[in-house]
Amino acid sequence: MTEIKRVCVVGAGAIGSLFAGHLGALREIEMTVLTRRQQHARALNQHGLEVSGKAKLHAPVLASTDPADLGDVQLVIMATKTTAVEASARRLQGHFADAAVMMVQNGLGCETLVRAMGDWPIISGLTFMSGIRQSDTHVEYELDTPTWIGPWHRQSDRPGFAFIKQVEELIAAAGLVCEAYRDLRPVQWSKLIFNSAVNAIGAVTDLPHVPAFAKRDRLEDLGHLVHAMMVEGVAIARAHGIELSSDPWAMNCKAVSQGASHEGDEYAHVTSMLNDVRNKNDTEVDWITGSLVRAAAEVGVPAPYHETLYRLVKGLEASWQQRKD
Amino acid sequence: MTEIKRVCVVGAGAIGSLFAGHLGALREIEMTVLTRRQQHARALNQHGLEVSGKAKLHAPVLASTDPADLGDVQLVIMATKTTAVEASARRLQGHFADAAVMMVQNGLGCETLVRAMGDWPIISGLTFMSGIRQSDTHVEYELDTPTWIGPWHRQSDRPGFAFIKQVEELIAAAGLVCEAYRDLRPVQWSKLIFNSAVNAIGAVTDLPHVPAFAKRDRLEDLGHLVHAMMVEGVAIARAHGIELSSDPWAMNCKAVSQGASHEGDEYAHVTSMLNDVRNKNDTEVDWITGSLVRAAAEVGVPAPYHETLYRLVKGLEASWQQRKD
Repeated sequence: MTEIKRVCVVGAGAIGSLFAGHLGALREIEMTVLTRRQQHARALNQHGLEVSGKAKLHAPVLASTDPADLGDVQLVIMATKTTAVEASARRLQGHFADAAVMMVQNGLGCETLVRAMGDWPIISGLTFMSGIRQSDTHVEYELDTPTWIGPWHRQSDRPGFAFIKQVEELIAAAGLVCEAYRDLRPVQWSKLIFNSAVNAIGAVTDLPHVPAFAKRDRLEDLGHLVHAMMVEGVAIARAHGIELSSDPWAMNCKAVSQGASHEGDEYAHVTSMLNDVRNKNDTEVDWITGSLVRAAAEVGVPAPYHETLYRLVKGLEASWQQRKD
Repeated sequence: MTEIKRVCVVGAGAIGSLFAGHLGALREIEMTVLTRRQQHARALNQHGLEVSGKAKLHAPVLASTDPADLGDVQLVIMATKTTAVEASARRLQGHFADAAVMMVQNGLGCETLVRAMGDWPIISGLTFMSGIRQSDTHVEYELDTPTWIGPWHRQSDRPGFAFIKQVEELIAAAGLVCEAYRDLRPVQWSKLIFNSAVNAIGAVTDLPHVPAFAKRDRLEDLGHLVHAMMVEGVAIARAHGIELSSDPWAMNCKAVSQGASHEGDEYAHVTSMLNDVRNKNDTEVDWITGSLVRAAAEVGVPAPYHETLYRLVKGLEASWQQRKD
């Protein structure tokens, strides 16, 4: 594949803006952004993108709501939430014939939504960095945690690992943390199993990720459920032949003990799913807990805990509609 | 046992007031009420108790916050919520030596809390009637559905079924619906298994008992979970040698189809546990879903669904404390 000179970020929320702001600030990169709103594209074309917080950057970008306006690119970073990937991928149909599409969504399975819309090589990925969108043209870089990328396991020869390493180097050169894996799934699934339990249980109990998630003293303690769900997730991974990089239960215990030492630092504990629930936005549960339910069914592993939490979060989403009726 | 002439209702909420208002309106009954608040007792002594709605009655009552003021009675009706039974029973210690204590709580196991405080014969029971407490001295009789009573299975010879039949006749004479069973458990457990699933799932999803509780088409449909929980409950009952009077899943499907035909009649669908959750009151989950978790453990039956919902509702209760911190 050719050298990467032109990049398109799809979706300029917090994550998309962090990628576009960092990559666009590199002299050798022409940065383009596909937005949903025309007003957003106009603002970006006029002011560029400003990054504050962990980095101070300004990036000129070419933005539009129509991919035809953006020209060819070698790399598309699909930076929307899981719930918007299908609609975003549909807008890419027939465009960017020479590009690979890199995913950074939570959960599993968004690659298939992209594949259904075009034959682009696909790079799997997930990101832990976080930012706060201050305006259409300003993002605050908050957590400088990594983005992990690797081959999509269903088509691991396209774009080829050499290109994935190029992407890793490019993102690192832009000042973000990126790690490329030859097999992404051990790290991806470890995090997924952790996220599935912590996010779904937090969503239905309205609890941030507090020490109760690791407590297993009394019969009613929530840690029993977190543990049971994680054991079930590990069994699903094993049945798929995946050797996890980390034990999700150990990740859970470590995260709550770190959280407990930062009292008052409420932000870090509120999972994205709980945040969606509190704002009555549809959650990403279909791609997190739901993806593990589907993965379990594929290999015939029972998944009563994941099924239960999946259905409860979907029920909670339905209740917002119910109360509007 | 002697004829019932003096009765004490403990706790004058909606259910307690319905019993006291009906029984107290009978000329042959001297009705006493044990209240928590002195102001409540004074109001009852001054104005008596008024029943409106499905019945129009006025009952003179003798009320106090101290059982010593109320004299001997032959029947105590423990009419508090499950969450207040232990504290109420403690106040009865050393009083009412000749009385049998009749329970009407949701769920299972409140009898043991009473037994721990005294040696009164105990009548098990549950009630489906409902009322709206309009004031300290006025209750509106809303649903004229039955109260079921029967021997407490752990001590089924005390007070003896003849006395339980007397209680049934007395309550019926007062204009309420009452049915005495030689073995209460088949009806009690059928309703309990139904209630455990519908209440706990409703509590965490914020859903009233809507048709989604019986829907099992798509993978994420909530009816799968309701069904799985009820199947598990039936297995727990069987392991205890209990032959259910009704199939909880059939009760569920019937209830939602009746509800669906009364659109706009929101009230009937909001379970008591969901109502508690919406008001951030501690729920009765320890005595409903929690009692089935304990019953399963006693006989070594796995209960992953009940354990999960039990822990989630307890987690939800904990979140109210969390957000206050």
